[in-house]
Amino acid sequence: MLTTETVERWLREDVGHRDVTNDVPGETTGRLVAKEAGVAAGVAAALAVFDYLGVEASPLVDAGESVEPGATVLEASGPAREVLRGERVAVNALAHASGVATRTRRAVDAARAVEPSVRVAATRKTTPGLRGVEKRAVAAGGGDTHRLTLSGTVMVKDNHVAEMGLETAVERFRERKSFATKLEVEVESPEAGARAAAAGADIVLFDNLPPGDVRAGVERLPEGALSEASGEITLDTVADYAATGVDAVSMGSLTHGAPSLDLSFRTGDDR
Amino acid sequence: MLTTETVERWLREDVGHRDVTNDVPGETTGRLVAKEAGVAAGVAAALAVFDYLGVEASPLVDAGESVEPGATVLEASGPAREVLRGERVAVNALAHASGVATRTRRAVDAARAVEPSVRVAATRKTTPGLRGVEKRAVAAGGGDTHRLTLSGTVMVKDNHVAEMGLETAVERFRERKSFATKLEVEVESPEAGARAAAAGADIVLFDNLPPGDVRAGVERLPEGALSEASGEITLDTVADYAATGVDAVSMGSLTHGAPSLDLSFRTGDDR
Amino acid sequence: MLTTETVERWLREDVGHRDVTNDVPGETTGRLVAKEAGVAAGVAAALAVFDYLGVEASPLVDAGESVEPGATVLEASGPAREVLRGERVAVNALAHASGVATRTRRAVDAARAVEPSVRVAATRKTTPGLRGVEKRAVAAGGGDTHRLTLSGTVMVKDNHVAEMGLETAVERFRERKSFATKLEVEVESPEAGARAAAAGADIVLFDNLPPGDVRAGVERLPEGALSEASGEITLDTVADYAATGVDAVSMGSLTHGAPSLDLSFRTGDDR
Amino acid sequence: MLTTETVERWLREDVGHRDVTNDVPGETTGRLVAKEAGVAAGVAAALAVFDYLGVEASPLVDAGESVEPGATVLEASGPAREVLRGERVAVNALAHASGVATRTRRAVDAARAVEPSVRVAATRKTTPGLRGVEKRAVAAGGGDTHRLTLSGTVMVKDNHVAEMGLETAVERFRERKSFATKLEVEVESPEAGARAAAAGADIVLFDNLPPGDVRAGVERLPEGALSEASGEITLDTVADYAATGVDAVSMGSLTHGAPSLDLSFRTGDDR
Amino acid sequence: MLTTETVERWLREDVGHRDVTNDVPGETTGRLVAKEAGVAAGVAAALAVFDYLGVEASPLVDAGESVEPGATVLEASGPAREVLRGERVAVNALAHASGVATRTRRAVDAARAVEPSVRVAATRKTTPGLRGVEKRAVAAGGGDTHRLTLSGTVMVKDNHVAEMGLETAVERFRERKSFATKLEVEVESPEAGARAAAAGADIVLFDNLPPGDVRAGVERLPEGALSEASGEITLDTVADYAATGVDAVSMGSLTHGAPSLDLSFRTGDDR
Amino acid sequence: MLTTETVERWLREDVGHRDVTNDVPGETTGRLVAKEAGVAAGVAAALAVFDYLGVEASPLVDAGESVEPGATVLEASGPAREVLRGERVAVNALAHASGVATRTRRAVDAARAVEPSVRVAATRKTTPGLRGVEKRAVAAGGGDTHRLTLSGTVMVKDNHVAEMGLETAVERFRERKSFATKLEVEVESPEAGARAAAAGADIVLFDNLPPGDVRAGVERLPEGALSEASGEITLDTVADYAATGVDAVSMGSLTHGAPSLDLSFRTGDDR
Repeated sequence: MLTTETVERWLREDVGHRDVTNDVPGETTGRLVAKEAGVAAGVAAALAVFDYLGVEASPLVDAGESVEPGATVLEASGPAREVLRGERVAVNALAHASGVATRTRRAVDAARAVEPSVRVAATRKTTPGLRGVEKRAVAAGGGDTHRLTLSGTVMVKDNHVAEMGLETAVERFRERKSFATKLEVEVESPEAGARAAAAGADIVLFDNLPPGDVRAGVERLPEGALSEASGEITLDTVADYAATGVDAVSMGSLTHGAPSLDLSFRTGDDR
Repeated sequence: MLTTETVERWLREDVGHRDVTNDVPGETTGRLVAKEAGVAAGVAAALAVFDYLGVEASPLVDAGESVEPGATVLEASGPAREVLRGERVAVNALAHASGVATRTRRAVDAARAVEPSVRVAATRKTTPGLRGVEKRAVAAGGGDTHRLTLSGTVMVKDNHVAEMGLETAVERFRERKSFATKLEVEVESPEAGARAAAAGADIVLFDNLPPGDVRAGVERLPEGALSEASGEITLDTVADYAATGVDAVSMGSLTHGAPSLDLSFRTGDDR
Repeated sequence: MLTTETVERWLREDVGHRDVTNDVPGETTGRLVAKEAGVAAGVAAALAVFDYLGVEASPLVDAGESVEPGATVLEASGPAREVLRGERVAVNALAHASGVATRTRRAVDAARAVEPSVRVAATRKTTPGLRGVEKRAVAAGGGDTHRLTLSGTVMVKDNHVAEMGLETAVERFRERKSFATKLEVEVESPEAGARAAAAGADIVLFDNLPPGDVRAGVERLPEGALSEASGEITLDTVADYAATGVDAVSMGSLTHGAPSLDLSFRTGDDR
Repeated sequence: MLTTETVERWLREDVGHRDVTNDVPGETTGRLVAKEAGVAAGVAAALAVFDYLGVEASPLVDAGESVEPGATVLEASGPAREVLRGERVAVNALAHASGVATRTRRAVDAARAVEPSVRVAATRKTTPGLRGVEKRAVAAGGGDTHRLTLSGTVMVKDNHVAEMGLETAVERFRERKSFATKLEVEVESPEAGARAAAAGADIVLFDNLPPGDVRAGVERLPEGALSEASGEITLDTVADYAATGVDAVSMGSLTHGAPSLDLSFRTGDDR
Repeated sequence: MLTTETVERWLREDVGHRDVTNDVPGETTGRLVAKEAGVAAGVAAALAVFDYLGVEASPLVDAGESVEPGATVLEASGPAREVLRGERVAVNALAHASGVATRTRRAVDAARAVEPSVRVAATRKTTPGLRGVEKRAVAAGGGDTHRLTLSGTVMVKDNHVAEMGLETAVERFRERKSFATKLEVEVESPEAGARAAAAGADIVLFDNLPPGDVRAGVERLPEGALSEASGEITLDTVADYAATGVDAVSMGSLTHGAPSLDLSFRTGDDR
Repeated sequence: MLTTETVERWLREDVGHRDVTNDVPGETTGRLVAKEAGVAAGVAAALAVFDYLGVEASPLVDAGESVEPGATVLEASGPAREVLRGERVAVNALAHASGVATRTRRAVDAARAVEPSVRVAATRKTTPGLRGVEKRAVAAGGGDTHRLTLSGTVMVKDNHVAEMGLETAVERFRERKSFATKLEVEVESPEAGARAAAAGADIVLFDNLPPGDVRAGVERLPEGALSEASGEITLDTVADYAATGVDAVSMGSLTHGAPSLDLSFRTGDDR
C-alpha cells in the first residue's frame, strides 16, 4: 500500500514550487520500457504515482515477472502535463524496486540450483523510507522478506548473549514475546546453535561462519528447529551456503545498494 | 536538514508497534565503523537519528572525508535501549549516502585525471524520498548536484523540441522562466547544440552522443555557453567524456543504485 | 515510541487555535493521581506529552505496576501554562491505557488461577490510531499482544478455507509467508484442528467453540503445535477456556472498550 | 470530516509492510452486522475507510439510528483484497463510535424520563486522537457535545478561582474571550454559583455536588443563566441530577471507556 | 502553539534540498528590527523557528506591545548557519502577524475613540494555513478573534433563512448546537434583528447595513441580546459603526491582506 | 500542485471537530464572483479544495486573466454540505493569490510603460506556508518568481562580502554551487557591481541604491552580466528603477502583504 502521503512527498521533492517545462497542453501517452533484462517490481508504486495525478496507467507486466530488453512494463495516458510530472518519480520507484527484485531472483536461482527448498532472505538493511517497497520487491523476486520490523520476529543478538548468557537471554525473550511470534537466536559456532535450540529457539542464525561450520551447526539441530545463515554472503557464495542444509540464507545486499534496473520513459512514436 | 518528521518516519518503519529485544537496561556506547574504504556522507542524517532518540552522538569524520577500513565514523552514547533502537536506521542512512559519495568520488577522480576542471554531475535519477540526502552525498563526494528539482534549471527536452521546434521551444521557456534561473537545452547532434546556444540556451546538453560528437558539439559553441554530456556514461567512459571539453559530465548511476558502503555498528569492546 | 507527530496531533485536537484560560503566569506542579485501583500503563505517552511542552515530568510508577486509590502515578513541574495545556491529554492517554492494562490483569489473574502457564492475548480489535499504545498496555497488564499488524503472524481465516479448502490454503500461505513468521489457522471443530496441524499450521485457533470442544481439539493436536481459543470470551468465561489446555486465550474486550482507569490531575495543595 | 491522512494512519497501523493473507483474487461483498442492540455512529468514518480503498460502501443505517441484533449497518463491495484490508479498521471505528452513541442514548433516555428538556453532555475526557469522532458520536446518541476544544467555551476552573478570586477571574476571562464565546464558571457550592452568575458567567458549573446542592444552586441563579452539573455522574445517578433543574448534566463516561458495540463483518452467504 | 510540523514545513519550503550560501562557519547574533511603527505579534512563531534550529532567541517585545522604528523585537544567537537559515522564515512570520496586529490596533483605536466598550472583531477571512497565527495576532492588537472555526459559534446565515424561514432555522440550530455555544443570526434589516432575538439568537449580526439601520436594529433588541455589524467596514467607517451601539464591529480586512510590518534582520554591527 | 495534505490542513483549521450549520440536505451551485477588478490567481488551489470535497468545480477564468467587478471566476456544484464547507477556504485562497497577482500586474504595467523588456520580480518575503501559491500568483500577474528557495540561485549577500571580501566570496560559492545554477552578488555601489561581474557573478544585485546609482552600476557591467535592483521599491518608484536599464526590479511588496482581491461566494439566485 503506497499512501497518498508518500506519493505527495515523492512528487514534492522532485517538482518544487513551480515547474515551467512540464506545463504543456494536450494529452500524451508514455511507456515505461525496460532497457535491460530483469524482474519487475514496484509496479504498484508507479501506478499509484500516476493515479494520484489523474493519469490512467495500466501495467503490462506484474510484479515478479521477468522482462526482456525492450519490454513495456507500464503504459500511462492523460494530460501531458501530468504524465510528464509523474514520469521521473514513477521511473525512479520502479527502477529501484525492480533492481532489488532482479538481484533477489539471481540469488534465488543460484541457491536453488543446489538446493531447491532453500529460502533466500532479505535483512533490515533497507534504504531509509523504503522498507515496505523493498521488502515487497524481495518477495517479487522470489525471496523471503524475513522480519519486516523489529516488532516481528524476536531476535536474540550477540550483545544479549554477551550480557546475560545464551540460556538466560532466550528465557527472557521467550517470556516477553508473543506466542504468535518466532524467536531467533544469533550464534557464532555450531555448538552454540545446539544450545540455542535446546533453550527454545525457533530459529538458529549462524552468523559469519564459513559454510562448513554452518553445515556442522545444522546437523546438530534437533528436528523442527529452523536454521539460517548470514554474514557477507554474496551472489558468488550463496550457493555454498545453500548447500549446507540451512533453511534460509540471508543477504543484506539484496536491498543494500542493489543497482537499479535500467528503464526509460518514452512518449509519442519514439520506439 | 533532516526533519523530525523524516526521522520519525524512518524509525517507525523499522521499529513497529512493540520492540521487545531492544528493551534492555543501562547505558551503552557504540561506534559506526567502516568495513571498506570510501567517502563519508549522510553523517548529519545519522546524527539526527540519534539526536532524536536522546543519544549523544559525535562524528569523527565529516561528510566528504575519505575513510579507510576500520575507521570509526561516529560514536553514540546513551541509554542502551535508544542506542540500539537507532542503530540500524543510522547505519542504513549513512551506508546509503556514503555509497553515493564513494561512487561519485571515483567518477570525479577518473574524470579529473584527464581534465581537472570538468564537473561530474548527478541527475534526477534519485531514490524516491531521498532526493536531498543523495544530492548532498553527491556534493560530499566532490560531484555537482545539478538541478535539485524540476523547478530549478529549466530544461528543454527532446519532446519539447519535437513538438514546437528548437527555437520556438527555447523562446517559450526563456519567457516563462525566471531571469535568475538557467535554461538548458537537450540536443542530439553537434549542429543542434550550436542552434540551441544561438537561440539563447545557457547550457547545451549533448545527450546520448559518442565522445567524438560531443567534442564536435562543444567546439561549435560560442564563448560563454556551458556544455554537458549525458546518457549511460559509466565509470569506464567518464574519462572519455571528460576529455571532450564539456563543462560537465552527468551520470544517473551516481545515485541510481550505487552500492552502499559497508559499515557496521559495534558496541562494547568488540573491536 | 510516541512520536512528536502524535503528541502534536493529540494536543492540537484538544487545544484549538487560541486557548485563553491556560494563559496564566508562573510555575506549577501537578500530580496525576489514581482514584481507583488498577494497573498503570501509558506512562511513556503521558511523559512524552509533558516533555514536548517543556514540562519536567517524572513517573512514580512504571507501566505494569499496580496502583491503589490515591497513588500518584506521575508528577509534572513547569510553566503553569504548559502544565495545564498538557494535563487533559496526558490524563486521557494514561487513563485509557491503564484501563486496558487493568482489564488485562484481571483476565490474566482469572486464567492463571486455573492454569498458570496459559497466555491471555489481545486481538486486532483496537481503537483506531492507538494500536501501539493499546498493545503495549496489554503487555503491561501481563497479557500477550498477539500479532501487532496483518503483516505479523499469517492467519488463515474461515473465508480462505471456504474458498480453497483447508490444506490448499495452508499450503498457499506457507509458501508465501516468511520462514521467520508463524502460520495460524482458524478452525471451527476439533477435527479441523488436527487437519490444520497436519497441514503445517504452527498455531491452531479454535474459534467460537465451547470449552469442551476446545479441550477435545487440543487433545488431538500433535506435540509442538500451539493452540489458541477465541470468540466472545469474557472475564467470566476466561478461566473455563484456560482450563482446556490451550496455550492462549484471546479476548477482543481487552482493548475493545475497556473502561478507562479513573485518574485526576491535581495541582497545588489539594491532596 | 475524516481526512485521508487519518484513514492512511489507521490502515497503516493495522496492515504493516506486507500483508500476505488478504492478497486474494476476485470481488467480494461484506456486511457489517450488529450483534447487539445499540445506536449507530462512526458510519462516515467506516465509509471513508472503504472509499479510500476503492471499495463501494453504502450505509443501511444513519448515524443516530437504533439497530437491533442482526441488523446490517453497512454493505461493502469491491476487490476482495481491498474489502478485507479495510474490514477490521472499519469495524473498529464503527464499533467504537457506536459504543459511545449507545451509552449516550442510555444516559439521555434516563435523564429525559425525569426532565425532558435536560441535556446530557460529554466532556474533554476523550480518547486521544478521536476527539472529533467521539464528539460526533455523542451527538448521534442525542447528547450535547459540550465544548470541542479548549478554544471553545471559556471555562474558569477552581485553580483560577483559588489564585485570583472568583470575581477577578471572571472579569479577566470575560475581557480576554471573544464576545461570540460563552464563559462558564466551575463552582463548588450553591452560594458560589450565585456569585459567578452575578459576576457575568453565562453558565455555572456545579462540580462534584450532591443533587440537593445542585438544586439549591440552580434555584439561586438569576434568569438567563445556564447551569450544568458534573462530577462522577453515572447512568445510575444521571436522573437524580436531571431532576435538579440544571440545563445540562455532563458525564466523562460517555466517551471515557464506553464499551464498543459488538459488530461483525460477514462476507459471502454466512448470514 | 506553533508545532514542529509547521516549523519544518515553513523551513522546508524556503530552504529546499541544498542551501550553499548559509553554510558558513562560526557563531553569530542577529536582531529583528522594526523599520516602521506598529504592534508586535507572531513573536512566539519566530521564537519557535529559531528554537527548532537550536538558536537561542529572546524577545525584547511581547505580542501586543507597540514598537517604534528602530526597535529590536527579538535577538537570536547561535551557529551562523542556523541563524541565517531561520532568519527569513522568522521575519516573514513576525512581519505578517505584526501587520495584522497593527491594522487591528488602528481599527480598535478608531472605534473606541467614539465608543470605549465596543469590540472590533476579525472574521474567517484568514490566510489559508494561518488561522491560528492571525487570530492570535488580532488578539495581540486588541481585537476580538470572533469564532475560530465553523465548529465554534453557530451562525445562521442568509441561505439558511432563505431556505427554512428565520424562526425555523433558529429553532433547528438551537436544537443541534451545544448549550455551551452561542447562536448568532445574520439579518439584513432592523426588523429581522428583533425577530431573530425573539426566536432565541444570542447574537444578532446586522450584515451590509448602513450605520443608521444598524442603530435602529440595535435599539429594537431586547436586553441581553448581543449585536454585531459587518460588511465591508473599513478603517474609515469603523467609527461610524462603533457609534451605533453594537457590541462588536467585525472587519474581514483585519486579516484579509493586511500589509506586513516592515522588519529587517541585522547581524553584526550594522546598526 | 496543491497536495491533499495541504487541502486537508486548510479545511481542518476552518471546520473544526463538528460543524452544525453546513449540515444541510440537497444540492447547490455557487459562484465565486469578483467584487473589484484585478487579476485572477490561485484558481488551481480553489479547484483543489472543491475537488477534495467531491464538488464539481469549473473555472471561468484562467490564472493570469483580468477580471472585472461582477465577473464569475469559478462555479461549484454538488452536495450543499460540501459546497458550503469548501466555500470559505476556496475564497480565501483565491482572494489571497489574486491579490498578489493583481499587485504584480500593476507593478509590471508601471515598469513596462517605461521599459518594455524589464522584469518585475518577487523575493523570498512570502507568507509562511504559501511560497508556492504566491510565487505562482506572481507569475500569473506577469512577474518573475525569482528564486523559489535558498537552494535555487546562489546569492552572495553583504554579510558574506563583509566576512570574506567580495572576490573570495564569489570564488567560494562558484566552486560550491552547481554549474546549472546562477550566482548572484548583492552590492551596494556601482563600483562593487563591476567587481562582482569581473569575479564571475551571473547577476549583480544593486541593493538599496537610488535609481541614478543603479544606472551608473548597470553601465559599468560587461556584456552578458545580468542586473537587478531591489530595496524598498514601491509601485510609485518601480518605473524609475525600470528606466535605469536593469534587467529586473524586485519588490518584496508583491507578496509581502498585498491586499486580497475582494471576492464573494454566491449561491442560488442572488446575482
